[in-house]
Amino acid sequence: MVKNIKYNVSFRVWIYSGENKFLGIGRVELLERIKATGSISNAAKEMKMSYRQAWQMVTEMNQRSNYPLVEKQLGGKGGGGTIITPAGIKAIETFHELENKVRLFIENETEKFNL
Amino acid sequence: MVKNIKYNVSFRVWIYSGENKFLGIGRVELLERIKATGSISNAAKEMKMSYRQAWQMVTEMNQRSNYPLVEKQLGGKGGGGTIITPAGIKAIETFHELENKVRLFIENETEKFNL
Repeated sequence: MVKNIKYNVSFRVWIYSGENKFLGIGRVELLERIKATGSISNAAKEMKMSYRQAWQMVTEMNQRSNYPLVEKQLGGKGGGGTIITPAGIKAIETFHELENKVRLFIENETEKFNL
Repeated sequence: MVKNIKYNVSFRVWIYSGENKFLGIGRVELLERIKATGSISNAAKEMKMSYRQAWQMVTEMNQRSNYPLVEKQLGGKGGGGTIITPAGIKAIETFHELENKVRLFIENETEKFNL
C-alpha cells in the first residue's frame, strides 16, 4: 500500500525596495529583453505587454533602486536606444544568483523530507 | 544623491507530489483550521471558501500523500468529526520548518546584496 511518492518543492522570490516590489522574475525578464533588443518597445512586444506597462515597470525599477537600471541613450542613427546600466546588469545577476542559491538550499532540504 | 535603499526579499514555497501541487500556505492553513475545529465545514467557513472546495483540497492532499492527512471519525455524540492524522501533523510541521529555514537562508543572502 506504500505509494512511494517523490516530493519536490517549487518557489518564487521577490526583491523589495522598502515596502515596494523592486524585482520579480517578470521584471528581470523585461530587463534582459531590453538588454538584448536595446529597446523598451521591442522588449514589451516580446513579452506581449503594452509599451506603457513596460515603461511603467522600468520607471518604478529606476525609482526603487539606488542607481538607475535602465537609461535612454540620445542621438546616433535611428535616434538612440535604451541600455541597461552596470547597476541593471548587477540587479539581473543578483536576482538569478539568489534564485540559484535558494534552489540548491531547497533541494537539499527536500531530500530530508519524511512525508 | 545616494538613496540608501533597504532591500528585502519575500518568497513563497509549494510542495509538489510528483507533478501535482500537494501543499501551499493556503492548504496548510486549511489543515490547521480542520485540526482546531475538528470540522472541514467550519474550517472552510473560517477561510471563506465553499465546503465543496475545501473537501476537494482535502481529497487531493490525501491522494497526493503517502499516508492520509485527514480522516473522518465515525460515530460518537454529534456524529463524529474530522481529525488530522499524525501524517497530517507532520506535513504541517514540514511545511513550516521549510518556510522558516528558507526565510533564514534568504535573510542571510539579502545582507550580502550590493545593489
